[in-house]
Amino acid sequence: SWELNYREAAIFLEEGINNDKLTSHPSCHEALPAYLLVHNKWYYALDFAASLLLILLTFTEKPANPLFRLPVGVHSSMELTALVIVSVELIMKFRWVGFKIFIHHPRSMVKVVTLLIMIAESILVLVRQSSHFRVTRALRPIFLLDNHHFGGVRRYLRQVLQSMPPAIDMLGLLLFVILFYSVLGFYLFGSNVNDPYFSTLQQAFISLFILLTTANFPDVMMPSYAVTRWSCVFFITYLSMVLYFLMNLLLAAVYASFSSMEKNKFQQLLLHRRKAAQHAFRLLLGRNNRFGITLQHFRGLLRHVDSSRTYREVYLMFRLLNTSESGIIDVNEFYHIYDVLDTKWRVRDEEPFWFSRLRSPTLAYCAQQTYAYVSFYTLEACLKIFGMGSHDYFTSGWNCFDFTVTGVSLIGLAAEILGHWSFLVVARHLRILRLFKLRKRYRDVFGTIFILGQRLLCAGIVFFILYYAYSIVGMELFAEYDLTNCCKNSTVEANFRYENGSSSNGYYYLNNFENVISSYVTLFELTVINNWYIIMEGYAVTTTQWSRIYFMCFYLTIMMLLSIVVASVLDGFMFRISYKEQMTKEDGKKVF
Amino acid sequence: SWELNYREAAIFLEEGINNDKLTSHPSCHEALPAYLLVHNKWYYALDFAASLLLILLTFTEKPANPLFRLPVGVHSSMELTALVIVSVELIMKFRWVGFKIFIHHPRSMVKVVTLLIMIAESILVLVRQSSHFRVTRALRPIFLLDNHHFGGVRRYLRQVLQSMPPAIDMLGLLLFVILFYSVLGFYLFGSNVNDPYFSTLQQAFISLFILLTTANFPDVMMPSYAVTRWSCVFFITYLSMVLYFLMNLLLAAVYASFSSMEKNKFQQLLLHRRKAAQHAFRLLLGRNNRFGITLQHFRGLLRHVDSSRTYREVYLMFRLLNTSESGIIDVNEFYHIYDVLDTKWRVRDEEPFWFSRLRSPTLAYCAQQTYAYVSFYTLEACLKIFGMGSHDYFTSGWNCFDFTVTGVSLIGLAAEILGHWSFLVVARHLRILRLFKLRKRYRDVFGTIFILGQRLLCAGIVFFILYYAYSIVGMELFAEYDLTNCCKNSTVEANFRYENGSSSNGYYYLNNFENVISSYVTLFELTVINNWYIIMEGYAVTTTQWSRIYFMCFYLTIMMLLSIVVASVLDGFMFRISYKEQMTKEDGKKVF
Repeated sequence: SWELNYREAAIFLEEGINNDKLTSHPSCHEALPAYLLVHNKWYYALDFAASLLLILLTFTEKPANPLFRLPVGVHSSMELTALVIVSVELIMKFRWVGFKIFIHHPRSMVKVVTLLIMIAESILVLVRQSSHFRVTRALRPIFLLDNHHFGGVRRYLRQVLQSMPPAIDMLGLLLFVILFYSVLGFYLFGSNVNDPYFSTLQQAFISLFILLTTANFPDVMMPSYAVTRWSCVFFITYLSMVLYFLMNLLLAAVYASFSSMEKNKFQQLLLHRRKAAQHAFRLLLGRNNRFGITLQHFRGLLRHVDSSRTYREVYLMFRLLNTSESGIIDVNEFYHIYDVLDTKWRVRDEEPFWFSRLRSPTLAYCAQQTYAYVSFYTLEACLKIFGMGSHDYFTSGWNCFDFTVTGVSLIGLAAEILGHWSFLVVARHLRILRLFKLRKRYRDVFGTIFILGQRLLCAGIVFFILYYAYSIVGMELFAEYDLTNCCKNSTVEANFRYENGSSSNGYYYLNNFENVISSYVTLFELTVINNWYIIMEGYAVTTTQWSRIYFMCFYLTIMMLLSIVVASVLDGFMFRISYKEQMTKEDGKKVF
Repeated sequence: SWELNYREAAIFLEEGINNDKLTSHPSCHEALPAYLLVHNKWYYALDFAASLLLILLTFTEKPANPLFRLPVGVHSSMELTALVIVSVELIMKFRWVGFKIFIHHPRSMVKVVTLLIMIAESILVLVRQSSHFRVTRALRPIFLLDNHHFGGVRRYLRQVLQSMPPAIDMLGLLLFVILFYSVLGFYLFGSNVNDPYFSTLQQAFISLFILLTTANFPDVMMPSYAVTRWSCVFFITYLSMVLYFLMNLLLAAVYASFSSMEKNKFQQLLLHRRKAAQHAFRLLLGRNNRFGITLQHFRGLLRHVDSSRTYREVYLMFRLLNTSESGIIDVNEFYHIYDVLDTKWRVRDEEPFWFSRLRSPTLAYCAQQTYAYVSFYTLEACLKIFGMGSHDYFTSGWNCFDFTVTGVSLIGLAAEILGHWSFLVVARHLRILRLFKLRKRYRDVFGTIFILGQRLLCAGIVFFILYYAYSIVGMELFAEYDLTNCCKNSTVEANFRYENGSSSNGYYYLNNFENVISSYVTLFELTVINNWYIIMEGYAVTTTQWSRIYFMCFYLTIMMLLSIVVASVLDGFMFRISYKEQMTKEDGKKVF
């Protein structure tokens, strides 16, 4: 009976760490095996592999690069297998939480619906032996997001979605101004036959929407500017208002809501952990000790939470928790369990390695000058890894930085000696990056990278998923069209021109959706915004005017996401600065 | 004797408000007349007129629009007159502070040197009756900046300059990455004869510098992308690192230094005012009251500080300052003098006008629907102005907003009825803007505008001055060149093409430096960044490759200035939010 209590308390603690809702806790002791089956690192890895496989399958499905293409039967049976593996967790969850709570858990319900659609479609493909308009593939990243290892990304994504409302409000204002100016522009410039940008009201709206991204400036102004110089007032006021004022306000509004949410999030996480700790605490009370946990029960708990801990470590943790030294841990002391679980123990008064104090800035500067540099720093890195152990070495951001720079320089040197891949010689010059460490402000900036690291990684994954969804839709819509020499008699004709051997090729026909990789590159070009409208024009002329909606939606999504990324970089930077102010210089050195 | 003391104390208080250095205080009582001569509103206005005239003269000097052109003799004698008026303040200052302090005051010394050069040049022009390479005209805004009314702009400019160091550091890192990638790009793509962007090392650097602004993307990638698809990795890593990472870090670094400086600035302003108040306090002590100021002396002081105050007001101010109610003001009480000087007095328990509570959101919404709108809101505005007095009415930001929207709608209605200027009809639709007031988030955003107002105005003036300096240099360098049909056989040939009656004109030859107004428009186009390199190419091909330096410098200056403007908008927004949190809802309504 105690064994089951320990196990359930450990589950509560884990739910606290993972920020899982406590309502989805196993409903009774009989449901425990189902819970344990899908909550271990083997199942996590399997689920991750299946979700990743689902995403990678896109490379093999039509339209695909011939290199990776697979027969329909093969890739759709692989898909079905992966879907079944993914659904195991849902079936198990259904068992351990019961029907009533299950249907009130939004994330699970979304997953169920998506799964059902996908399994049905996949069977249909297997039966018909050919693919149909499968735009639902864009939802595949949902399974990846639901994976245990993607908790950080889920939280970041939630924060992104919650930052949207102020951005959307500002978007409304933005659209109003665009509409207002397009009516005005049509009235003013519509009569000019040489001005294709304001010929109809619809065209005026499109031109001004593109002008919001600055991508057609100053071309959009030139025809009317040639007629009268006063027309520049129209464009200057529009850009000042929309680009320099409203877009900045949008950023500010997003930043404000992001940083206030950051505070709330931490509060809620803390409260959730406390609640989980309370539940665990109650399970560990004995009949004799109704107010605290004894060492014996604490050891029982730790066996299930982290079985790698030795007895000595568990005892030290108990002593650390038990600040009142009463021999039993009360609930207020038990709240600190999460901090204690992360502790590492080391024998005190260990002498630091003599070579950790080896390098002074002057010595470093001298070493830059000569060939000795690479061998010197390689030796240093080897000694450090050998002396400190590779794990300790790589936990310090600065060591990682040194290791990367040294490694790349080494590759450059090797390339020079071997004579192959001569362009890599330039990598040697990366050693100059080490010089940047000597200046305090650069140290601060690089220090931020380590703090921002996780956040930027999450942002990167969110971008990747968004690209995935848009590339699926893009391929389903546009893969069949070839843009080479398209758009005759339009303003973008030159960009899509291709003649064999000619030097005036525009090459824009290469920006297409013919397979996943091409789509990703095309979407990146749309992200950079400059000249994005040329790609849009190409598809609008070749297919239908309605295809603009796809590109405009992509622009708006990316714009908001980029504002949020900027906001999170700013927030991280400001956090780092106030953090640094509170730490002494010596402590700061140790951490980074 | 007391009269002189009062006057000097008033000068100290004014120096506290203006943030003038206390060392530049009149050195003795004999120097007072010189001080008073240049510190009154008449001289301020004269100085302002002369500085503005100097700037406006640019419109009449060669190269100028034929409409405004004046003979050399006329505009250079006007210039000389204006310069003499401006120099009066310096001569007077020299008299009242003495030689030693004068030469240690940087702002005055800069002004002296600039003035001497300008007077010499202006006489030279008058003698030769023709202008020479007068790039020093770019310094003319210095006189405007030194004017009494431009204290806010001066402070903003100082803050901008102090925010530069972190930005410049990041710029160093940015240039390093660009250099590194240009060497790598030259190695990788230099051998491709169809790729004009990486043909030489210099060309590679220019291409990647332009790519930093995204202006030539994806064109710069296409030739190498057509050869191998892997080349996109080069460009994607470059843009991710430079544009999305380093540029954001630059913004963050600028923002951090800006907002920490904002705090320091207020501290220093407060301390300076306190010091000035101390000096004034010492002058007002009588022989009988060595620890405080009596009402009699306080009245004497106020006569010189603000002669429009009635006796009742002075007495109320005295009572307000004298919190200890001892009858004499001690130094700690006197520190609050600046707050008290700004107070306005009103009879208490005045009944608010019945029509100030007239409008409810529902009523407002109904009024939007019909024609009655304009007449309704015009009536409301008239009644409010009549009832509250125009001064009180316009101090509220929301009233200004209402007034503007109503006024513009009225113009639209008039245009519709008269049938002239039919495009103004669209102005009627601006009434929808009033709807935005109904939603809380828009109210917040518009509320920020009123707070940000002064800051944005300063930023606008700084931009205007920067444009002025660059337009003078641009005109001196490029005014003589005509770009029509230039750049044969270069990539930008089509943009500069002009054939009479043809519909494929590029019109870029209109973006030139032929007079001040054209230069301003051209510089605005460079500010928007998109396609800025086409203008640069035009001049680089027509004149010399070195002309690129002008355009690159302008880009870097603008980029940093824009970051600072974004930082100041963010800072203002965050300030507003924390300010709002501290105010109750009711108070908030009154202020905004």
